[in-house]
Amino acid sequence: MAELIVDIVGSCAATLTTVAFLPQTIRIFRTKDTAAISLAMYLTFSTGVLCWLFYGLMLVSWPIIIANVITFGLCCAILAMKLRDVLRRRVAK
Amino acid sequence: MAELIVDIVGSCAATLTTVAFLPQTIRIFRTKDTAAISLAMYLTFSTGVLCWLFYGLMLVSWPIIIANVITFGLCCAILAMKLRDVLRRRVAK
Repeated sequence: MAELIVDIVGSCAATLTTVAFLPQTIRIFRTKDTAAISLAMYLTFSTGVLCWLFYGLMLVSWPIIIANVITFGLCCAILAMKLRDVLRRRVAK
Repeated sequence: MAELIVDIVGSCAATLTTVAFLPQTIRIFRTKDTAAISLAMYLTFSTGVLCWLFYGLMLVSWPIIIANVITFGLCCAILAMKLRDVLRRRVAK
């Protein structure tokens, strides 16, 4: 029973911290506004998620692999939109 | 040896996905700009991190507990600054 509760809480945690990046991705996609977004955050976070992905692959843990593939995809989309704005601003200067 | 590599990759992953929120917190604190930040993202992510914290407490895993206490603190700071701006905008209307 205790093990089941631990598994449920872990699954909720993984699902929430994965889907959380979806509203941020949608918001930037709609508004095209990335001014307040930290490039350093998404560079660091994406690298961390890539490490989690390798970790999951080494342990052959499908929940870790799937959650981190989705998070990595969403973070890369945010990172790409932020980088586009940073580069545009540099070209405009 | 293989176990050591798995542990190192896991530690790098946990460290990077934790410290990643520091530059975002500093950026908002300095610029006071939260316009592009998604409230839904930080509400969902903070709830997820709280679940990871309970997960770590149930397993008595100090690395999970420490990483998630730090992440929760940083996310709450971002969430507080975003909520302040959302409430200010509502009052101004």
